[in-house]
Amino acid sequence: MRLLVTGGTGFVGRWAAAALVAAGHEVFVTSRSSVTIPGCQVIVGNLFEKETIDTALDIAKPEVLLHLAWNVEHGKFWHAAENLDWAAATIRLVASAQKMGVRRMVCAGTCMEYDLSSNLVCSEATTAINPNTLYAVSKDATRRIADEFASVSGFEFAWGRLFFLFGPNEHPNRLVSSIITSLLAGRPALMSSGQQVRDFTDVRDAGEAFAALALSNVRGEVNIASGQALQLRELAHEIHAAMGGIGELRFGALPDRPNEPARIVADIIRLRDEVGFRPIKSIRERLSETVEWWRNRLASESVMPS
Amino acid sequence: MRLLVTGGTGFVGRWAAAALVAAGHEVFVTSRSSVTIPGCQVIVGNLFEKETIDTALDIAKPEVLLHLAWNVEHGKFWHAAENLDWAAATIRLVASAQKMGVRRMVCAGTCMEYDLSSNLVCSEATTAINPNTLYAVSKDATRRIADEFASVSGFEFAWGRLFFLFGPNEHPNRLVSSIITSLLAGRPALMSSGQQVRDFTDVRDAGEAFAALALSNVRGEVNIASGQALQLRELAHEIHAAMGGIGELRFGALPDRPNEPARIVADIIRLRDEVGFRPIKSIRERLSETVEWWRNRLASESVMPS
Repeated sequence: MRLLVTGGTGFVGRWAAAALVAAGHEVFVTSRSSVTIPGCQVIVGNLFEKETIDTALDIAKPEVLLHLAWNVEHGKFWHAAENLDWAAATIRLVASAQKMGVRRMVCAGTCMEYDLSSNLVCSEATTAINPNTLYAVSKDATRRIADEFASVSGFEFAWGRLFFLFGPNEHPNRLVSSIITSLLAGRPALMSSGQQVRDFTDVRDAGEAFAALALSNVRGEVNIASGQALQLRELAHEIHAAMGGIGELRFGALPDRPNEPARIVADIIRLRDEVGFRPIKSIRERLSETVEWWRNRLASESVMPS
Repeated sequence: MRLLVTGGTGFVGRWAAAALVAAGHEVFVTSRSSVTIPGCQVIVGNLFEKETIDTALDIAKPEVLLHLAWNVEHGKFWHAAENLDWAAATIRLVASAQKMGVRRMVCAGTCMEYDLSSNLVCSEATTAINPNTLYAVSKDATRRIADEFASVSGFEFAWGRLFFLFGPNEHPNRLVSSIITSLLAGRPALMSSGQQVRDFTDVRDAGEAFAALALSNVRGEVNIASGQALQLRELAHEIHAAMGGIGELRFGALPDRPNEPARIVADIIRLRDEVGFRPIKSIRERLSETVEWWRNRLASESVMPS
């Protein structure tokens, strides 16, 4: 099958593209810069430009569009104006893809679309929607338009909601990366209370789950997550253990964020039973692999402490 | 004050632009084609193109943006793909205007964003949102993004929700126009049961209300309507009377639409008390003027029945 993957060079997208290639599909990937991706045809361009959208659709002639691109700067993306550019680009991409006769479209959403104040498990069917960042509002609004458009135009539409991720190429300031790199550098890993409960997934599994969703005929919202409720404190201890217990975890060194939800955990019944996706490895194994990835990365950058 | 009005050549926008000019402001209007609008500087271009957006903002350097453009074909606009183009264009316009430092933005929404199933008066503060057409979903989603963006970026944002309109230049197939043109042509005016209750406003008043909203500092959603609950049957009788009782109204000749809300009426307290807008003329007077407008129009087109 021919698939067009946007964001196919990104944190999640590279694993989705790789999984689709591995499954024998013809995969086209859009990228802002000229890169080589094994098994994929790369289409260079900027999705904010209509010409790129049209060219990509024209070259790929995809049966399925997997739209994962939505890049905003780490630390700024919650309230960045660029969210509007991505919402607009996504809406235009969906409109153009429909015009081209694309049969199925799958886009990436976020757990932050949910009303997280109840601290209940987030279910696609029953949890209220109440995004309260520009990022999540933009995602939610984009989904509303694409979903309604799908229902009046007849294409298949699915929306995978990502929860918390870790894994190769994660931004070094994000939680799992920062714990690993601090400990590897011989610094204590400074953390908040660590009481918060989150649903963490390895990005390779998230990418594969998106590939599975793209290849399925499941419609509507699907949580892309592990379904495992992990306290950040436990997560840190897992990482610490995976590193052989070197270094120190310092809980409470950083303040908890005000109004931070106590619990963000996904119901993964749709992903598991309807999409049929199950990760091959445990979170523990994936954390070990991620530690190993960082060791290699830092070694190759020659910035490892002696 | 410098204002940029999009859709300033349109059904509503021309009256908004005229009201702003009459109030002594410096008004810039975007238009797809080269036209002359008294007192306004026209910027020709297509808002679907980023260049037009940037050029218009650069020329106008507006303190206030009044975005009324959202053109889709009559009879098709409820579910037209073009709604996505307009949503994307609006989001990009808002993003660019914020970047340019525009202090205040006012956009046009629709009463169809409300949950109309209760048949209660639509209040900005208390009526639930539940759009169920692609048009209304696209408007609602666009508003969600712009509103959140305003709250994180600090510009003023208002959203005027239009209810039912009539007046000069209305599409001839729409309700009031079709009654008038049928009767003028000596044909019976074919209607549904006419039991439905709607809130009708003359488009000149709606345009002036938007101008008032643009010039105010009122934020958030504001119903742009008359607040008058008028049964379609009564409306038809008013038109009939304004025409001196010529011709015949044939109620029940057309079917009512399935699932049509029985009642769509606006709470206009915000428009009246916060924006301070009150129409000068009654609906009855405006209907008479509209009949006169159609008489002149048809006479000038030499298609009047002898």
